[in-house]
Amino acid sequence: MNHEDWVRQELRELSKSLGFRYTPFEEIENRFIKVRAEMKKQGIEALLVVQKMDLYYLSGTTQDGLLFLPLEGKPLLMIKREYERAKVESPIKEVVLLKSLRDIPSLIQTIWNRLPHSLGLEFDLLPVKDYFKFQELLPGMRFMDSSGVLRETRKIKSPFEIDLMRRAGEIGKKVYQEARKILRKGMTEIEFGGLLEAAAKRYGHEGLLRVRSFNYEAYTWHVLSGPAGGIVSQSDSPMGGLGLSPAFPVGASLRSMKSHEPILVDFGTCYHGYQADETRMFSIGKLRQKFIDAYNACQEIYDALLEEIRPGADCEAIFVKSLRLAEKLGYKESYLGPPGLQTHFIGHGIGLELNELPFIAHGQSYPLEQGMTFAVEPKIVFPGEGSVGLENTLVVTEKGYEILTPVGQEIFQV
Amino acid sequence: MNHEDWVRQELRELSKSLGFRYTPFEEIENRFIKVRAEMKKQGIEALLVVQKMDLYYLSGTTQDGLLFLPLEGKPLLMIKREYERAKVESPIKEVVLLKSLRDIPSLIQTIWNRLPHSLGLEFDLLPVKDYFKFQELLPGMRFMDSSGVLRETRKIKSPFEIDLMRRAGEIGKKVYQEARKILRKGMTEIEFGGLLEAAAKRYGHEGLLRVRSFNYEAYTWHVLSGPAGGIVSQSDSPMGGLGLSPAFPVGASLRSMKSHEPILVDFGTCYHGYQADETRMFSIGKLRQKFIDAYNACQEIYDALLEEIRPGADCEAIFVKSLRLAEKLGYKESYLGPPGLQTHFIGHGIGLELNELPFIAHGQSYPLEQGMTFAVEPKIVFPGEGSVGLENTLVVTEKGYEILTPVGQEIFQV
Repeated sequence: MNHEDWVRQELRELSKSLGFRYTPFEEIENRFIKVRAEMKKQGIEALLVVQKMDLYYLSGTTQDGLLFLPLEGKPLLMIKREYERAKVESPIKEVVLLKSLRDIPSLIQTIWNRLPHSLGLEFDLLPVKDYFKFQELLPGMRFMDSSGVLRETRKIKSPFEIDLMRRAGEIGKKVYQEARKILRKGMTEIEFGGLLEAAAKRYGHEGLLRVRSFNYEAYTWHVLSGPAGGIVSQSDSPMGGLGLSPAFPVGASLRSMKSHEPILVDFGTCYHGYQADETRMFSIGKLRQKFIDAYNACQEIYDALLEEIRPGADCEAIFVKSLRLAEKLGYKESYLGPPGLQTHFIGHGIGLELNELPFIAHGQSYPLEQGMTFAVEPKIVFPGEGSVGLENTLVVTEKGYEILTPVGQEIFQV
Repeated sequence: MNHEDWVRQELRELSKSLGFRYTPFEEIENRFIKVRAEMKKQGIEALLVVQKMDLYYLSGTTQDGLLFLPLEGKPLLMIKREYERAKVESPIKEVVLLKSLRDIPSLIQTIWNRLPHSLGLEFDLLPVKDYFKFQELLPGMRFMDSSGVLRETRKIKSPFEIDLMRRAGEIGKKVYQEARKILRKGMTEIEFGGLLEAAAKRYGHEGLLRVRSFNYEAYTWHVLSGPAGGIVSQSDSPMGGLGLSPAFPVGASLRSMKSHEPILVDFGTCYHGYQADETRMFSIGKLRQKFIDAYNACQEIYDALLEEIRPGADCEAIFVKSLRLAEKLGYKESYLGPPGLQTHFIGHGIGLELNELPFIAHGQSYPLEQGMTFAVEPKIVFPGEGSVGLENTLVVTEKGYEILTPVGQEIFQV
């Protein structure tokens, strides 16, 4: 059998038997309606979708290719590799093989009769070199930044998407149920983290946690113990950990975890590209009282935050409320990072990427809306000693919220 | 203790006790000599190094920041976060805190008295949005693409770098020694892959395998069994596997591995950012003869390739020789991919990224040089049935080569 026939005849059945869920046609159609409304607002006549997660969102496939999506008329999915798989994975009917980027103008003209006057590209990630290439291929074209259009469109999740995130949360729950059986004294942070990830993968967790960024890389799991949890690193995060080397100065290290110190485990699980992010605390033997107190403060702040979450609530106001409460509880200097290095967010939107809209943060004054999904993470950092914190992913519902990471919040003591 | 003091006083000791190797001053100086020679050739007066691995290569740190490197005069490392850690990690003396990108022109002028006339940026990855920002901040500046300069500089590895790759290879060897104890019938591909990765991490393997690309993501481990090994996916690779969903249609899947079918394990290990890539074959019970024959052909091709490897050998000629031998052995249609989807390379440069120079490939006619490191991977694909193959990473030495992934090449049967 040749590869083409195998993909055509057997891929769909085999992948479905292994739990693949292809994005339905109606789901993609609804996304088109949303993205076109945003395009209209911003005066973009057509999109050329280049970034992998935007492509997945609007086509259902992550095969290597581009999507041409006009305000009106048929979309065109152009696939470099692998064309036959893209046809199985995407419900879009117009799929063509893209042998060379040079063919893009003629392929668009074939389906659309002419070229658009303006074309949106994701300027937040598209490399300069590729941009120059498109300028050469489409002379006279008015290129516009479409990253705002796509981020806006993706910020409200559909029931289909929320269900995938719920499934990601269920994988996380299974992992935490196993974690106490895995953790033991003398284990290194990275050994514990590796075994947790192996457990998650057994349940179908996809290895990469995607971040929409140029230099900020796919996130790896954080297992931060004692003083390693008390330091920050390259990212805008309350704590970063030691990591394994100057090339990976973040996350779990080769440090052996000790008794009575805080062990902060911050991990995300991923199902069909959709992520759930959560943080829980572990200890070997009883945790020192100072950290228990701080963790109780995190829980109090978390509970107070949840009371605010409903459609219409202002994102910045929720953040400010959490700051005031942290101050009142005596953690002004250690809330969300060490002094001078404190972050300015308590929540980040999550979905296909870990830094989607909304941000529950300083300077982000806009209302929560039903269908928004984000992670909230009150954390307290003691330099030289360790960190504590709690994190859950939730979705804003009609009247409040639903927790997508339903795992007990007690300190997991072994 | 505050965070700043902790980093200044304790980070170096703690990280060294956990095996961190900071890049020595002399190593960085030698890299400056090399990169400046390339800059001179291409007429670039200064670099503004923005990409994470280029930054690590030229500064020793991966903290969030940029490096200004002029043809003559002092370099300036500008760090957004985390400044104190960057000072511990980098041997560069001029390190400043970068509060805002707007400060870049004045910071450069402070150390250099003026701004350069031309400035190299990595156009292959720098996003358009950031490029426009630099244009706004540095009006009149002639921006040039420095990605070629950096790729050329990085293609020859120093003894320091080769030693780190050797250590990555040693981690891989330990993992393969454990793999036979881990594999058992009925296990899914992803379960096996997850446990192999957990083992590797215990030995210090860093989780992400970096690829220099916009949309091609950090590589995850491939465990491809039976028909799942016979299909290709989004990347330019002989086989891609099923993966876990349309969002991750590559690598290990939830398929249960069966007896007598080929199980191809392609994984890389990473130590201090430096990678070693290797592929070995496994089977549960005896592998079917068809696959044993094909694997023997891969070994024969591999042995013939090795005979060619020495300084001065032409990269394309090596590739063509392998094609001819595959044809002679009866695998013309299945060598390096299924018919119509065959790749056009037998080797890829490797170091901090998986797609460095050189490429042992079609259209790559240039000589091998001492200090080049690459992975060679003869592979044979049978659509609907499975794949076999072998891969090792090696370094070109004065008269030949050294294998950096010294693991037995027999089929690992359990």
